[in-house]
Amino acid sequence: MVKTGVIGLGYWGPNLLRNIYGNKRSVDLVMCDSDPARLERMKLRYPDVSYTSDYRNLLNDSNLDAVVIATDVSSHYPLAKEALLAGKHVFVEKPFAASISEAEELVDLGKSNGLVTMVGHTFMFSPPVIKTKEIIDSGELGDIHFITSNRVNLGLHQKDVSVIWDLAPHDFSMLFYWLGEEPSRVSAFGHAYVLDGIPDVAFINLAFPSGAIANVQVAWLAPSKLRRTVIVGSRKMLVYDDTEPIEKIKVYDKGVDVIEPESFGEYQLTYRTGDIVSPKLPAGEPLAAEMEEFLNCVETGNNPRSSGMEGLAVVRALELADASLKKAN
Amino acid sequence: MVKTGVIGLGYWGPNLLRNIYGNKRSVDLVMCDSDPARLERMKLRYPDVSYTSDYRNLLNDSNLDAVVIATDVSSHYPLAKEALLAGKHVFVEKPFAASISEAEELVDLGKSNGLVTMVGHTFMFSPPVIKTKEIIDSGELGDIHFITSNRVNLGLHQKDVSVIWDLAPHDFSMLFYWLGEEPSRVSAFGHAYVLDGIPDVAFINLAFPSGAIANVQVAWLAPSKLRRTVIVGSRKMLVYDDTEPIEKIKVYDKGVDVIEPESFGEYQLTYRTGDIVSPKLPAGEPLAAEMEEFLNCVETGNNPRSSGMEGLAVVRALELADASLKKAN
Amino acid sequence: MVKTGVIGLGYWGPNLLRNIYGNKRSVDLVMCDSDPARLERMKLRYPDVSYTSDYRNLLNDSNLDAVVIATDVSSHYPLAKEALLAGKHVFVEKPFAASISEAEELVDLGKSNGLVTMVGHTFMFSPPVIKTKEIIDSGELGDIHFITSNRVNLGLHQKDVSVIWDLAPHDFSMLFYWLGEEPSRVSAFGHAYVLDGIPDVAFINLAFPSGAIANVQVAWLAPSKLRRTVIVGSRKMLVYDDTEPIEKIKVYDKGVDVIEPESFGEYQLTYRTGDIVSPKLPAGEPLAAEMEEFLNCVETGNNPRSSGMEGLAVVRALELADASLKKAN
Amino acid sequence: MVKTGVIGLGYWGPNLLRNIYGNKRSVDLVMCDSDPARLERMKLRYPDVSYTSDYRNLLNDSNLDAVVIATDVSSHYPLAKEALLAGKHVFVEKPFAASISEAEELVDLGKSNGLVTMVGHTFMFSPPVIKTKEIIDSGELGDIHFITSNRVNLGLHQKDVSVIWDLAPHDFSMLFYWLGEEPSRVSAFGHAYVLDGIPDVAFINLAFPSGAIANVQVAWLAPSKLRRTVIVGSRKMLVYDDTEPIEKIKVYDKGVDVIEPESFGEYQLTYRTGDIVSPKLPAGEPLAAEMEEFLNCVETGNNPRSSGMEGLAVVRALELADASLKKAN
Repeated sequence: MVKTGVIGLGYWGPNLLRNIYGNKRSVDLVMCDSDPARLERMKLRYPDVSYTSDYRNLLNDSNLDAVVIATDVSSHYPLAKEALLAGKHVFVEKPFAASISEAEELVDLGKSNGLVTMVGHTFMFSPPVIKTKEIIDSGELGDIHFITSNRVNLGLHQKDVSVIWDLAPHDFSMLFYWLGEEPSRVSAFGHAYVLDGIPDVAFINLAFPSGAIANVQVAWLAPSKLRRTVIVGSRKMLVYDDTEPIEKIKVYDKGVDVIEPESFGEYQLTYRTGDIVSPKLPAGEPLAAEMEEFLNCVETGNNPRSSGMEGLAVVRALELADASLKKAN
Repeated sequence: MVKTGVIGLGYWGPNLLRNIYGNKRSVDLVMCDSDPARLERMKLRYPDVSYTSDYRNLLNDSNLDAVVIATDVSSHYPLAKEALLAGKHVFVEKPFAASISEAEELVDLGKSNGLVTMVGHTFMFSPPVIKTKEIIDSGELGDIHFITSNRVNLGLHQKDVSVIWDLAPHDFSMLFYWLGEEPSRVSAFGHAYVLDGIPDVAFINLAFPSGAIANVQVAWLAPSKLRRTVIVGSRKMLVYDDTEPIEKIKVYDKGVDVIEPESFGEYQLTYRTGDIVSPKLPAGEPLAAEMEEFLNCVETGNNPRSSGMEGLAVVRALELADASLKKAN
Repeated sequence: MVKTGVIGLGYWGPNLLRNIYGNKRSVDLVMCDSDPARLERMKLRYPDVSYTSDYRNLLNDSNLDAVVIATDVSSHYPLAKEALLAGKHVFVEKPFAASISEAEELVDLGKSNGLVTMVGHTFMFSPPVIKTKEIIDSGELGDIHFITSNRVNLGLHQKDVSVIWDLAPHDFSMLFYWLGEEPSRVSAFGHAYVLDGIPDVAFINLAFPSGAIANVQVAWLAPSKLRRTVIVGSRKMLVYDDTEPIEKIKVYDKGVDVIEPESFGEYQLTYRTGDIVSPKLPAGEPLAAEMEEFLNCVETGNNPRSSGMEGLAVVRALELADASLKKAN
Repeated sequence: MVKTGVIGLGYWGPNLLRNIYGNKRSVDLVMCDSDPARLERMKLRYPDVSYTSDYRNLLNDSNLDAVVIATDVSSHYPLAKEALLAGKHVFVEKPFAASISEAEELVDLGKSNGLVTMVGHTFMFSPPVIKTKEIIDSGELGDIHFITSNRVNLGLHQKDVSVIWDLAPHDFSMLFYWLGEEPSRVSAFGHAYVLDGIPDVAFINLAFPSGAIANVQVAWLAPSKLRRTVIVGSRKMLVYDDTEPIEKIKVYDKGVDVIEPESFGEYQLTYRTGDIVSPKLPAGEPLAAEMEEFLNCVETGNNPRSSGMEGLAVVRALELADASLKKAN
């Protein structure tokens, strides 16, 4: 059993709290926020959960095993660091930290103290993303050539970070999970239209050691919501559209076959088109699976799917993309 | 009335021929191809049209007003140059020429000899593209922030030019027509997967003097055909999907309004969502309109919508994009 | 202020309870179910709401103004009758009652006692349905020619009533509301495939005094969920698709114009196709609006939009359709 | 080799002519129309095809093996009868004849004279319809429960026959082909809105001996074109949407399983949802396959897929539906 403290009860924290509260590995859950109004609201909903307005009470509790941090990005690093130094396993919402160096230090602290660090890349626990990973790993798509991803919608402008830091963590965590590698190069192009200095549209290019490339489009300005990822492999192609209610994934048996010329002739190309299959996806709440992964890793010492290392890889790509975007303008 | 000669009766030339043949301004049409088989085929279809296997016969015909060139890209420049030097008005299929310098020389030759040069950017004569131009020019969308365009499909790999030279002329000609400006910067990222040295996927970024930016995706590898362009303006947004049978254009009354803070407060953003309108598009064959434009400009001396200047702008962007793509790899 | 008692806390009752609880006209709300487990569950959620396991306690409470009945269909009639006889205003879930005669008696009882009777035809309070009513009433569509409606999905078979009684109340209540009339003829065709004697697919034809006709398809067996209604008018046509996340309503400026022959000639028909408009829909929870309507009518004595008369019209059509279906098999 | 004469060169005849012209079994083709203008037009297109303005010349030609009749429905019967009496094999456009008795007589004449009679139910030669037949026959869908079909669009009103005679032949021929049976009962409901006495919308119910039922909607008044057929089987379900460019057929692994109660309990239903598969369809022009079938059957004496018997079954259902529609109004 794991005793956890949840720090930060604003927009996202209550969702994490609810899923730890419902998890069979959780015991003596504590919730924490320095804002009394937020704390009051949660006390009404969870009258049987302990609470505190000072996170230091959590860190000083020698029975507490782990903390879950769902505060502003700027406080991820100091809170997580303090928790790790206090010997607590740590789950941090995405993005892991505000810079590469912060994220690296947290990963190191976790390792040297034998503590779990995990980052809330929830999509890595979502059924269509996991199914896509299975299909890729099975070799059905062949070598992955390139991936394009769209994550655009009208709304909600952040006032302190670019659209890259807001939306790209989703795509980056999925891409790196699927490909099993970090990009060797990242560049970005975009612009700030609504708020000065806060880019609200960005086109990000990534190159991977395997030879795969990717293009990620993120925007807070768009006529309609798009959540569409296309994976082009050497044997088949896959479309993952998260806005589809049912057919979220479609596998296209499509490709080009190159026929080697026997002697002096030209290469011959034949285009292959076969069935299209939309596989059944298992049911399952990604957040419940994510919290289960964290508590399980705390108990077993296993490395979580979205560990600090994965969180660091995402932060590294975010920082590179953001720097490239600034340079381009 | 205009006497025209059509040079090149391969894949596209017959379409141009058919539309000149049916145009009321056309007289004494001549067709020309050095391949006897092609010429035979067209003689069967147009027994009343004169023909020759040598384009020089056309250029030497003092009654001939204009030539239409639908040959391989590499021969656009020498043929068009020879025709202009022979005093003929010239229509050249897209892309105008194989390099910026070639295109510039053709434009200059046309100007200095008082001859029409026109390039076959057919999309500039297509009803949804023209309607989009009208909507933009009316101010309904406000300032144009950014444009994204997808032109991907499985097939048909070219063996001599990259996917940029093959597909991007369509998007570039539309973009420059809509915005009324050429890009100040062009860069591209992509890869060659199927044929060595022939990139089959590319992501192109463009920045315009007005502050607008654009991202154009072109690929010969894709699970399904996409022809989707999104225009985000400061007041409204427009989606042009050429694969839709009916609702090719949709105008979204959507946007963000920034409310200036009265004193020290933060900027307030409100998101606006209203009706979605799919305007009726006039019927009309783009190619017929394109040929009508050419013959009309030959008669009147007017400058065509897709003149050599527009063709040169497209070639300039293609060359920049291709060079950037090579450098990136 | 209205003191209400909610009877029946099974599947749907809690939704009604929640919306009365949050309504500013509600005071001293009481909830009631004979099943202690259900009552317990609701007591946890609404610790400040009074409760009773015996509905007679409600009826005997002289301060109680109204009851809301969300029990099994078979008990609608006896409970509503007893409540009306006790002088309480009554809201009954759809379908109003299990037979025409039951529904007629309840309407009469309400009238003769000066009490409100209202039926839970929630769709009549849903933004797209109200917008459609406004568009029809404005005359924009012209005369309504015919309406087709699909309400099919895989699941959930009822074990006591046909798919007509389960799903058609939605379509019937919308149709009669839009057209402002009851059908003069109803017939149905269908079959029972999964459970003997319980038809799970039905095709229902309706003819209205105005000359309009309608076809309603309902099924518990279908490959995908359809909620699509098409209204063909003499001037324009409207599609209402409730499965669309955004563009639930589209108005097509389409029609046929008949040109009278001047003398002996034939009628000439011209087909008209114009813009397609998807109007912005107001936000709003239909159930909240429905409860507001009930409480408001109790206070003011006004006749609710979905009064007992409307509920009776639906029951009449259901009984006719069901009888026709049985005869056809 | 088969010598054929094509009678009727109006709207559809030229398509049949083109496909016979291109068929390797065809020799000495003759075309025929009493309208000189039509004949002239076709002579320009097919200068090497013989022609006549009098169909009797065809019937008197002892070398002629077969005639293809693409005239008005009212002349199908007299022309086909005369051709059969002259010993010619006969292909007649759909609908086969204007009444059951006419169709029956033609079938009898063909049989008693050992001549092929075939009807132009082109959909029976279309790849998605044939694929659907194969899937049904393989048992993959289980028992066929019911089929719904939509064939609606704005236009083109006929001035002599109802929408049933115009559009339902397509659906009827597909349904009877798939199910391998004729309906035991047919009824229809509809109305004439634009032209007096010419119903332009109809809802047709059909019951089959196997227990399957069907609902067919046809209309010349509709906001958008629908060509959607849903087949619900006991094991799987199939959607055939002919307006889809690629995924015309989708097979849904969906259904209800009834678990028999062990003792007194209730039936338990479980709903099953699996993969969705859109099978690859072979390429192929239905009309070419249809003409190949006719010429092949003329050569071999085989019975064509859409023989006079199939044409008669369709006419029988059309006449029943039309009569029912008239009675209902």
